[in-house]
Amino acid sequence: MLFKQFLNDDLGCACYLVGDEHAGVAVVVDPPYYIEPVLADADRHDVRLVGVVETHTHADHVSGHGRLALEHGVPIRVHRDAGATFPHEPLDDGTEIEVGAVVLRTIHTPGHRPEHCCFAVIDRARSEEPWLVLTGDSLFVGDAGRPDLAVEAREGAEGLFHSLRRLVELGDGVEVFPGHVAGSLCGAAMSSKASTTIGFERRFNPALQGELADFLDARLGPQPPRPPNMERIVELNRGELLGPRPPLDRIDSVPDEAIVLDVRPTEAFAAGHHPGAVGIPVSGSSFATRAAFVLPERPLVLHAGDEEEAERASRALQAVALFGVSGWQEGGGTEKLEPVSLDELERLLADDTVELLDVREADERDESHIPGSRHLPYRTARAAAEAGLLNGRPVVTICESGPRAAVAASVLQAAGLDARPVLEGGVADWQGETCSFRRCGS
Amino acid sequence: MLFKQFLNDDLGCACYLVGDEHAGVAVVVDPPYYIEPVLADADRHDVRLVGVVETHTHADHVSGHGRLALEHGVPIRVHRDAGATFPHEPLDDGTEIEVGAVVLRTIHTPGHRPEHCCFAVIDRARSEEPWLVLTGDSLFVGDAGRPDLAVEAREGAEGLFHSLRRLVELGDGVEVFPGHVAGSLCGAAMSSKASTTIGFERRFNPALQGELADFLDARLGPQPPRPPNMERIVELNRGELLGPRPPLDRIDSVPDEAIVLDVRPTEAFAAGHHPGAVGIPVSGSSFATRAAFVLPERPLVLHAGDEEEAERASRALQAVALFGVSGWQEGGGTEKLEPVSLDELERLLADDTVELLDVREADERDESHIPGSRHLPYRTARAAAEAGLLNGRPVVTICESGPRAAVAASVLQAAGLDARPVLEGGVADWQGETCSFRRCGS
Repeated sequence: MLFKQFLNDDLGCACYLVGDEHAGVAVVVDPPYYIEPVLADADRHDVRLVGVVETHTHADHVSGHGRLALEHGVPIRVHRDAGATFPHEPLDDGTEIEVGAVVLRTIHTPGHRPEHCCFAVIDRARSEEPWLVLTGDSLFVGDAGRPDLAVEAREGAEGLFHSLRRLVELGDGVEVFPGHVAGSLCGAAMSSKASTTIGFERRFNPALQGELADFLDARLGPQPPRPPNMERIVELNRGELLGPRPPLDRIDSVPDEAIVLDVRPTEAFAAGHHPGAVGIPVSGSSFATRAAFVLPERPLVLHAGDEEEAERASRALQAVALFGVSGWQEGGGTEKLEPVSLDELERLLADDTVELLDVREADERDESHIPGSRHLPYRTARAAAEAGLLNGRPVVTICESGPRAAVAASVLQAAGLDARPVLEGGVADWQGETCSFRRCGS
Repeated sequence: MLFKQFLNDDLGCACYLVGDEHAGVAVVVDPPYYIEPVLADADRHDVRLVGVVETHTHADHVSGHGRLALEHGVPIRVHRDAGATFPHEPLDDGTEIEVGAVVLRTIHTPGHRPEHCCFAVIDRARSEEPWLVLTGDSLFVGDAGRPDLAVEAREGAEGLFHSLRRLVELGDGVEVFPGHVAGSLCGAAMSSKASTTIGFERRFNPALQGELADFLDARLGPQPPRPPNMERIVELNRGELLGPRPPLDRIDSVPDEAIVLDVRPTEAFAAGHHPGAVGIPVSGSSFATRAAFVLPERPLVLHAGDEEEAERASRALQAVALFGVSGWQEGGGTEKLEPVSLDELERLLADDTVELLDVREADERDESHIPGSRHLPYRTARAAAEAGLLNGRPVVTICESGPRAAVAASVLQAAGLDARPVLEGGVADWQGETCSFRRCGS
């Protein structure tokens, strides 16, 4: 049995190549838009792709099913409730997809979305019973899918509860390979470990303990932000098939209406960048998500250290449906971003010469924050500046360890503000007084 | 919990990075000599390497523990029975290695070798019970380790039987991550799938069924060839620490005593190569193993398509202790290797103008072979030619699908014979009569 997991570290998405090397055939489950690594692996194992299978219509990344269908003639399968308008063979609960001696048995598991399916994978060369299950956005490693993205949260959570019970019935010895790992916005507490077992999760995953009421209590609490671009991505993923994009070109000048996205490391951006550029390092975590949150709907020009870095950024942006990249240039320029140390920040706050913006999420701020700081999650910085919610005073941005503060400061600087980030350290390193949600005072 | 598997596809070896991202620490289990991908991943996850752990003294690949210790100051741990002469902290059954909130609990599992240990891995952030077990060369996916490499096979097999029983006691829901996958000579029937569970193997792995007598019957049968260079690799792995090697240089001429190893694809080698060169494509399977089997103990010069291909070949050769590479050159030359089609072979045999060499292994030949062909496993071709066992007649080499026939023909040609390979197809595609071990006739 051929079985390979492909992780997109930036978005925390997993894709699977499942097949039978002896029969020379395989299917791809939940392909990313950037399908080349999967094609290369299929080629290396000398298997022909005979199908694309989707666990559900993804809301956080653009599927590669269109490219596989249009460029390689691979047929697509998805559950009939997906409302997919592209040509596909609909799946139902129990549908068996045969791939040589390997079988993917469809388990309809609504919850995250109504059409969601898991696939129990059987290798007949070893046994007639499932060896592993691909759980998509239902059961994660240490967590379960969020129920609030496609339907009303309570309805989703009830469906998910019953779907998870069905998965547990597969038995302790069945391996679990999820559709997401840490880094994804499709769950809250999932692990960075990329696999587990039914037995381990049955015993130690909070989502598999207790009865429906406990489950609803836990699942209907606060959720992470909804993935950016969600509606657009869902429409792309269930609509007309999306083919390949033109290659990324080097260009000479920045078109008038375009915005520059500088993807170099923060130090390079801080040392000198194009005036008006937004800086989000592609080498950092959650690059694409951050870009999708803070960029306006305008054509993009990438500023990168070299072509490889630009290509990497372009691919990551395509994964979240940011297709409007006009080209790339080598990064650099006269504008600087001046970091603030925690010591200097203390003096600036004592002198009341800056406003401190806490750019983390609400749950982090509730744990502990610096008194007098204003809460402005980095992902809302552009909207806040455009809406005139910042009064023009110099601002300092702070997060946990620097990266989000840097993005927020670059966004605010691009919007015309005097903005400086704390790059070394964050709220947890603050030596002065802090507040928490429940108790105030240090 | 940070958990990453690194596969060497060429040798079928697995290495693991296990750690605690929050605490910023990790250990490497069974590192390859080429440690750079592991270091890069540790860096990307911002973890410091605090230990190297060996399941046993490997006989098929050079460990990277020397490089990690000498270049990065990482301490090494291995079971006290390994007879390791390098500085190390000895492990015993039950020793717990703490890595932040993650614990590796040592399970002494003699069998493959007397010092062999497995490691049950616990993530205290999730449970006090093992989540997974690193099984080294004891339990494989669909197979068990071979018992005949370090000790007398019966003694090894008895130890292995009891060791496997201890692993089964871990419980069905524990994930299994082995030290080898398909492609390795350290087992016979392992899967290319790189993980499994105790529960699935308990029920469906032949090595876990039945009593000691059944196990011995099964394990003491024929084994794959012993890994080439085995004694040398074992000595390197338990002796003085082995540091880094000098970089691979491009050189102008082939030193007198050197032999040329051409690592380009077979078609390129066949079209024109350096007289006397041996051709083994680095893009093919089992490159390093094949090289270690057929190359004499002489300095090597690599002939490659480009520097990247040469580097890749050099790294793969170092993995099997072939360190004597003098440099690389661009491949090509006047000597050709003339393939034979199956149709032409039929005519040549009818005219009795060639001798047909079946270069597969004995178990393959027993299944079915071409009458009148002579058995000469490709890995023994050089020794046979040097010992004068071939009478100087033109030979044709044949295997299952071409690659081993190509290697054998290049080795025989380098030894001065008129040798041609069947590159398209093999014994199974032969239209004429075949023999099998039990029944003769087609």
